[in-house]
Amino acid sequence: MPRAIVFGEIPGIEEGHWFEGRKEMMPTSFHRSWGAGIDGNGNEGTSAIVLSGGYEDDKDLGDEIIYTGAGGNDPKTGKQVADQSWSNRGNAGLLKCMNEGLPVRVIRGHKHNSDFSPKSGYTYAGLYSVVDAWQEKGKSGHKICRFRLVYSGANDTRKSAEETELDHGVRDKKRIAGTVLRIVRDTKIALDVKNLYKYKCQVCGTAIKTPSGFYSEGAHIRPLGKPHNGDDSLANLLCMCPNHHVMFDKGSFAITDDYKLMGEVTGDLLVDKKHQIDTNNLSYHRKSHGFD
Amino acid sequence: MPRAIVFGEIPGIEEGHWFEGRKEMMPTSFHRSWGAGIDGNGNEGTSAIVLSGGYEDDKDLGDEIIYTGAGGNDPKTGKQVADQSWSNRGNAGLLKCMNEGLPVRVIRGHKHNSDFSPKSGYTYAGLYSVVDAWQEKGKSGHKICRFRLVYSGANDTRKSAEETELDHGVRDKKRIAGTVLRIVRDTKIALDVKNLYKYKCQVCGTAIKTPSGFYSEGAHIRPLGKPHNGDDSLANLLCMCPNHHVMFDKGSFAITDDYKLMGEVTGDLLVDKKHQIDTNNLSYHRKSHGFD
Repeated sequence: MPRAIVFGEIPGIEEGHWFEGRKEMMPTSFHRSWGAGIDGNGNEGTSAIVLSGGYEDDKDLGDEIIYTGAGGNDPKTGKQVADQSWSNRGNAGLLKCMNEGLPVRVIRGHKHNSDFSPKSGYTYAGLYSVVDAWQEKGKSGHKICRFRLVYSGANDTRKSAEETELDHGVRDKKRIAGTVLRIVRDTKIALDVKNLYKYKCQVCGTAIKTPSGFYSEGAHIRPLGKPHNGDDSLANLLCMCPNHHVMFDKGSFAITDDYKLMGEVTGDLLVDKKHQIDTNNLSYHRKSHGFD
Repeated sequence: MPRAIVFGEIPGIEEGHWFEGRKEMMPTSFHRSWGAGIDGNGNEGTSAIVLSGGYEDDKDLGDEIIYTGAGGNDPKTGKQVADQSWSNRGNAGLLKCMNEGLPVRVIRGHKHNSDFSPKSGYTYAGLYSVVDAWQEKGKSGHKICRFRLVYSGANDTRKSAEETELDHGVRDKKRIAGTVLRIVRDTKIALDVKNLYKYKCQVCGTAIKTPSGFYSEGAHIRPLGKPHNGDDSLANLLCMCPNHHVMFDKGSFAITDDYKLMGEVTGDLLVDKKHQIDTNNLSYHRKSHGFD
């Protein structure tokens, strides 16, 4: 009977743990797939990957890794001999991780070409988050699927995923006043509200379609953080498309205690009978934006 | 003739600069409004504010300040005697700063109740960004307009605005894997593309209406940062609503060299004749998402 997939840290295997070979990983759920670089699939997600030198296009910067997906390469030479596809189970699993924030265990093998690779065997590099996915032509001329992963484990001597992401794309590290910043950070609870509504916006019913699945955002009714101090709970969360999320946060519209929309949007909020919204939060939002 | 409004640092006046009184600020454009706490208006923005103890509801955490807007208070007692309004020129100016990323010079007076206030006179606290605005009932029972400002100056011994914003709303500082993060960071050039299209999405023509003006986002065609290395230039930027921005970034649709939309969206991209888009960037985006 195959072991169930497990995401996150495996007890007893710390960051930096050394394995003599691939078979030493197998007795636990750490990496269950003998021979394959990716342990996972599109239904469950991908829980672990091995950087083994099997792909010529991988890039490893330590806390940030550009990883080439699975498929289309010659296992003997590592050369691409065919295009890669998003429907490959390991690649589909990594897309699911990106969309749902599932962490990926990254393992470096001795044949992987980087400053961080062990001289022999394999080392556990820690938990990473998938933050980007795209296709390009690899060195071979064939299409490859690529993923950008950033370290997201608990080791606070390393950069956090948020810090890595904030720095990413900033060419000039000099501080420049005059930037408008909008951060959407969805935790596990936001995923619950999205699943409850099947990613449909509770205002307009739209579910944003992307090649890797539907997209929506968790909108806090009473904002998190000082001085509002709203809760990160289902009673304070709505599932919204990005447009209505911006409009709600900025007070273009508000919601009555009996779920009528008021302001720039009219009609009724879509509310599942399993979703218990705290009307104190709705009232707080209305008062914040001049509706009460 | 009144001096023109100037945003950002004023040469010769460093962070921590001490002024004996309000009139010492006046010879420069540092703070031009004798007696008023806020120097600015809704057309130009607000360039400077004074925390003078005139408002009972201000809160000062150093790099993060909750500031009460102007209007409705008794200048002698500091007590609110009437509601505040967003149409007050200083408040409208702070909203413009929030929407356009204009920096605000913050000055603390000796009557302002905080650990950071000088014993006498006034000190310059540095440049801040307005990151949130809302209304609430003040201690007096009257409505007040409130702004959250975060330090955004160049002093790197202090927290950056981005760091303050990332920490904001995170109740538990422990690192938690499993967060989906989306950062929209619009610089001055993004503002140019938004103004060119009057905040209308180039895909659907929508301009998101908010109480403080229209909202849209600058979408980079070829992404910034490694390994894509796109430019932060008009030739690589499009004006989009948040929904189409997400869809474009995730490859739900792409754009041909003659500006036809392909994929989940059809029709033509709206392109102003003054907007020179680099078709190499469009091609890069198509290849990234399997359209070419």
